[in-house]
Amino acid sequence: MQKSASASSLGAGGLDLSQIFFKPIQNTSPPSPTKRHTKISVIGTGNVGMAIAQTILTQDLADELALVDAIPDKLRGEMLDLQHAAAFLPRTKILASTDYSVTVGSDLCIVTAGARQIAGESRLNLLQRNVTMFQGIIPPLARYSPDAILMIVSNPVDVLTYVAWKLSGFPSNRVIGSGTNLDSSRFRFLIADHVDVNAQDVQAYIVGEHGDSSVALWSSISVGGVPVLSFLEKQQIPYEKDALEKIHKAVVESAYEVISLKGYTSWAIGYSAANLARSILRDQRKIHPVSVLANGFYGIGDGDVFLSLPAQLGRGGVLGVTNVHLTDEEAQRLRNSAKTISEVQNQLGL
Amino acid sequence: MQKSASASSLGAGGLDLSQIFFKPIQNTSPPSPTKRHTKISVIGTGNVGMAIAQTILTQDLADELALVDAIPDKLRGEMLDLQHAAAFLPRTKILASTDYSVTVGSDLCIVTAGARQIAGESRLNLLQRNVTMFQGIIPPLARYSPDAILMIVSNPVDVLTYVAWKLSGFPSNRVIGSGTNLDSSRFRFLIADHVDVNAQDVQAYIVGEHGDSSVALWSSISVGGVPVLSFLEKQQIPYEKDALEKIHKAVVESAYEVISLKGYTSWAIGYSAANLARSILRDQRKIHPVSVLANGFYGIGDGDVFLSLPAQLGRGGVLGVTNVHLTDEEAQRLRNSAKTISEVQNQLGL
Amino acid sequence: MQKSASASSLGAGGLDLSQIFFKPIQNTSPPSPTKRHTKISVIGTGNVGMAIAQTILTQDLADELALVDAIPDKLRGEMLDLQHAAAFLPRTKILASTDYSVTVGSDLCIVTAGARQIAGESRLNLLQRNVTMFQGIIPPLARYSPDAILMIVSNPVDVLTYVAWKLSGFPSNRVIGSGTNLDSSRFRFLIADHVDVNAQDVQAYIVGEHGDSSVALWSSISVGGVPVLSFLEKQQIPYEKDALEKIHKAVVESAYEVISLKGYTSWAIGYSAANLARSILRDQRKIHPVSVLANGFYGIGDGDVFLSLPAQLGRGGVLGVTNVHLTDEEAQRLRNSAKTISEVQNQLGL
Amino acid sequence: MQKSASASSLGAGGLDLSQIFFKPIQNTSPPSPTKRHTKISVIGTGNVGMAIAQTILTQDLADELALVDAIPDKLRGEMLDLQHAAAFLPRTKILASTDYSVTVGSDLCIVTAGARQIAGESRLNLLQRNVTMFQGIIPPLARYSPDAILMIVSNPVDVLTYVAWKLSGFPSNRVIGSGTNLDSSRFRFLIADHVDVNAQDVQAYIVGEHGDSSVALWSSISVGGVPVLSFLEKQQIPYEKDALEKIHKAVVESAYEVISLKGYTSWAIGYSAANLARSILRDQRKIHPVSVLANGFYGIGDGDVFLSLPAQLGRGGVLGVTNVHLTDEEAQRLRNSAKTISEVQNQLGL
Repeated sequence: MQKSASASSLGAGGLDLSQIFFKPIQNTSPPSPTKRHTKISVIGTGNVGMAIAQTILTQDLADELALVDAIPDKLRGEMLDLQHAAAFLPRTKILASTDYSVTVGSDLCIVTAGARQIAGESRLNLLQRNVTMFQGIIPPLARYSPDAILMIVSNPVDVLTYVAWKLSGFPSNRVIGSGTNLDSSRFRFLIADHVDVNAQDVQAYIVGEHGDSSVALWSSISVGGVPVLSFLEKQQIPYEKDALEKIHKAVVESAYEVISLKGYTSWAIGYSAANLARSILRDQRKIHPVSVLANGFYGIGDGDVFLSLPAQLGRGGVLGVTNVHLTDEEAQRLRNSAKTISEVQNQLGL
Repeated sequence: MQKSASASSLGAGGLDLSQIFFKPIQNTSPPSPTKRHTKISVIGTGNVGMAIAQTILTQDLADELALVDAIPDKLRGEMLDLQHAAAFLPRTKILASTDYSVTVGSDLCIVTAGARQIAGESRLNLLQRNVTMFQGIIPPLARYSPDAILMIVSNPVDVLTYVAWKLSGFPSNRVIGSGTNLDSSRFRFLIADHVDVNAQDVQAYIVGEHGDSSVALWSSISVGGVPVLSFLEKQQIPYEKDALEKIHKAVVESAYEVISLKGYTSWAIGYSAANLARSILRDQRKIHPVSVLANGFYGIGDGDVFLSLPAQLGRGGVLGVTNVHLTDEEAQRLRNSAKTISEVQNQLGL
Repeated sequence: MQKSASASSLGAGGLDLSQIFFKPIQNTSPPSPTKRHTKISVIGTGNVGMAIAQTILTQDLADELALVDAIPDKLRGEMLDLQHAAAFLPRTKILASTDYSVTVGSDLCIVTAGARQIAGESRLNLLQRNVTMFQGIIPPLARYSPDAILMIVSNPVDVLTYVAWKLSGFPSNRVIGSGTNLDSSRFRFLIADHVDVNAQDVQAYIVGEHGDSSVALWSSISVGGVPVLSFLEKQQIPYEKDALEKIHKAVVESAYEVISLKGYTSWAIGYSAANLARSILRDQRKIHPVSVLANGFYGIGDGDVFLSLPAQLGRGGVLGVTNVHLTDEEAQRLRNSAKTISEVQNQLGL
Repeated sequence: MQKSASASSLGAGGLDLSQIFFKPIQNTSPPSPTKRHTKISVIGTGNVGMAIAQTILTQDLADELALVDAIPDKLRGEMLDLQHAAAFLPRTKILASTDYSVTVGSDLCIVTAGARQIAGESRLNLLQRNVTMFQGIIPPLARYSPDAILMIVSNPVDVLTYVAWKLSGFPSNRVIGSGTNLDSSRFRFLIADHVDVNAQDVQAYIVGEHGDSSVALWSSISVGGVPVLSFLEKQQIPYEKDALEKIHKAVVESAYEVISLKGYTSWAIGYSAANLARSILRDQRKIHPVSVLANGFYGIGDGDVFLSLPAQLGRGGVLGVTNVHLTDEEAQRLRNSAKTISEVQNQLGL
């Protein structure tokens, strides 16, 4: 699908302009196979997958972008719609296929595909169906791009990142889940909006399980480099813990609110995934709260579990986890989440 | 809607961090009213409107972005979804309301709203309903932003750009339609894909009426600065005119193809509108094929008609129209389109 | 100097292509005078001024860039050298003149001009000569751009920012000095280099007087959102205060080191000033340590003094000063600097 | 020189924060050796080399930037000055050394080093000294980066590109000279300035030998996709050939003008080289007039000669040469240049 079918009509009159327009110079040799492009594959072209693909394209993060989906018409429509913007963007090769061979040699594979809940279906049953779906996705991805980094966006993201890790056979530093990177952005937006500063000047992490049981790290909040809680304490300004919990609740609810209003979330998760892609592929060594293999951190121990922790990301994937100080209560909540996730995983029979 | 409802929960404990965190310096004065931000309003938050809004946000083209739609839930959901990405983007103030007052002081208003065809409805009836819709959109936009530039994206774009011009009372240089800017990008992509060059190195215009009766300017095609047709003639390479027409046909059909495959077009028109927004707001004085008041060009005369011609765009809107040489046949086709459009307009009773 | 002399040779054959190429459309009106470009003026085209101008151009921060210098040849050479890159950059109008009228209507004026020390000259004498130079620079800048924001880069930056404030008659929120914004970047680089993280993930401020007596705010240092000192304390990791002071000393010395090695500093101050320009002109509301009117902060009181404090910058200039908690010792050092500066200023007879 | 000497003072108190801050996750493996960064080396840190290095840094074109120069102090000063801006830029590793091992694994090596003319020295003698200099530069570059692309900027660029090709043993598609890429930008600027359009909307090539004997391709000039000469002919607008020659003369003289005014050229060549670097490293397949092995084009034949022709550049270096139609006179001038260059080369004894 390298040349679109419609483009070939150009040659209908017997013209092959590329042969006429360019002539090779003498004494050349083909480019070395190590001179690789940056290639990103996005699996699943629903609202989330396409928001990610389009943001990656606008931000010029890849030289080659491959889309995979099970529905060929939708897939080809999305590919053409992106290709038609070629004159407005830096050149990126855009491919699409229902066959995973199109992803060959990817540096980063972003998985957004997932099963939809059927009315009355149990969470475990839904998860089991997602595992089955991943059994058709992850092994071919790993086979065609054995050196890639896998980023899982599908929900429940923490368990499915574990599943992807198991199915890929990849080392743990090359498998991450988008986790609470977006929750943390929402957290930073709410604080920035209130204080009327740039959200990029607000530091604040939400860690743990993506969703309702996530853990807000209050001591991590700083505005313009000023740690908020210790500032309030030093200035002897009283605050109620309830007020803090309300902010966290607002973060958790904001995802549900968007879904109830427009039916799904797309733009913010698109920017979040593109943000992670940049840190990884441009080796930015930045710290992001993403889902990583969490064993051994904060007393998490029984069985392999993926949870979001502030991780340093670069070309090698996860370079390390930031040694954030948690309160005893925060650490306990993390361990509880880990235990719940572990129990669910044990039922999957992987 | 400046501060989101959820953000106010931050103050629930009696804290107003913005008062605590920042203290004013002495001897200050408020910023001069002439120190304006760049503000873009997008009317209609369907697939096209949101692709435009999101691309504008990613490309950092505005300091303030206002969304207007008739459906409050969808509108608020889209606003929140964009706002949640704050930590990943340069700071842009994002507003949304069903009330046009939210657009006050815009530099550019992009209208994507439009009625949908009802089964069995005549084209004229549909157009009449769109005119009625524009009567509710354009006058308040013009009132709240009397110095703005209007960009119409809704279809049929040429007639509706005329309607917007009439309803706004704006000078013609401040009303444009997105017209064949996207058709031309598709044209350039097809040629670039065939020759295997960067589409930005391909020059090629499609002008006239957006859609089936558009006119491809063959003599305008150049690749890497080499005019293709005169090149073929000089090299005495034969080509068939049919082959050229097939390319044009492929361009016209590619929009239909995307619609038949994914149900609508969104990404490419989003990039196209953002591309025009940049040329206008950053005063780039670049040349784009967009729908402008075409009277007096190429013998177009009877009545006011908007058609796409290669226009130079800058902070003042349309700065002029490029004096492209058309063949007699091309000019005749332009005049025919103008006549058809003019007849339709006469039935609208504006 | 809008059209370069050499360009006019194009018309030598009697051709005015601009008249031939573009034709106006009907019913137009000139753009509203409120539709302003973003204009930046840089005063002084030495190594610092040109590094700033070139970085602003590369980062596409202005629609118009005006250069002013007393030496016409050097000035014109720099203007042409930037203009010759037009095909590689977004369109920016580049002007240059020894006459300040070229700066008319600037949004931001960046002053880099300064006298050079004569062998054996006292610091006070040098300063006095700089004041005389500023008497020829600031009043015309203020007259031609009464709504502009003034950014002073010339050294000694704190006193000269005060001088510019006095000479301009501007409110204090529209006069800043580049101050310790660069010192803080060097501080962040040294920490990031040691910890092997992205410097953008390091928060750390140096405040006070730019140069030897600047104050490092140890409690403000955080890496990836983790406050370093309280982290070390919580983890009961011992550290010596001497080690911290050595980092500060390395920051102060790094400027001298660059000067001793290459003769001047240019690139880093260029990026620093462009960074401030972006926050101001794009209304980013970000927090930067820059020289602002410091009276009333941390007990600074006697007479008007400019010192670097973490200030929030936006389209209105200084929006406020962050309420950072200082130790008693840090606050005392700030007051000492303020007193020294105040005494120098009293000798200037402004 | 990976960690600056000053940074190591951070560890003076026995602290190694990188060990304390980050902990590895379990089951990791080191990144695959094929997961390479993009690395650019710049040889020579004079005005030209530093303008190139700084523009590459601002435009975020490389993950790693290595500087090489024979003067260690100047070199270290420039490295530190760039590193100090770390907080204002995406993370790029900046290295510097007098030893070529610092360039190991480069994707692109840009050579700006060159000998300065001694008063009374013949051109041939100067060239011979440059060849001697290249004998110390090119072989180690080729050894440390056997898959790199070499870009020569030093003058006389065409002969020295040939010399670099010979000394490197590289295939010809991996050795280019910056050639007339900048001359063409100046050409486009002069035309754009006259017509008052964006220079990016002007297509125009200068080819052949960089400098006085370069050849302007008049038939290649188009503005906004309108070929100028055929436009004038079709509109029966008379023009004098002298007027065209004056433009070409203005281009040739503009380089001399900048040198006479400011002493050297730097910014424009910096943008030109960065522009080529982007096309190559991001595989943009764009067409640029650069110095390539020209044998076999336009009857150029006797001996190997490098001359600027419109070449398509991508990750593999030179992908082909555009088949531009030259008039007999233009082709003859190219052949004359080729002959002159060839004769000079024969005297070098390579």
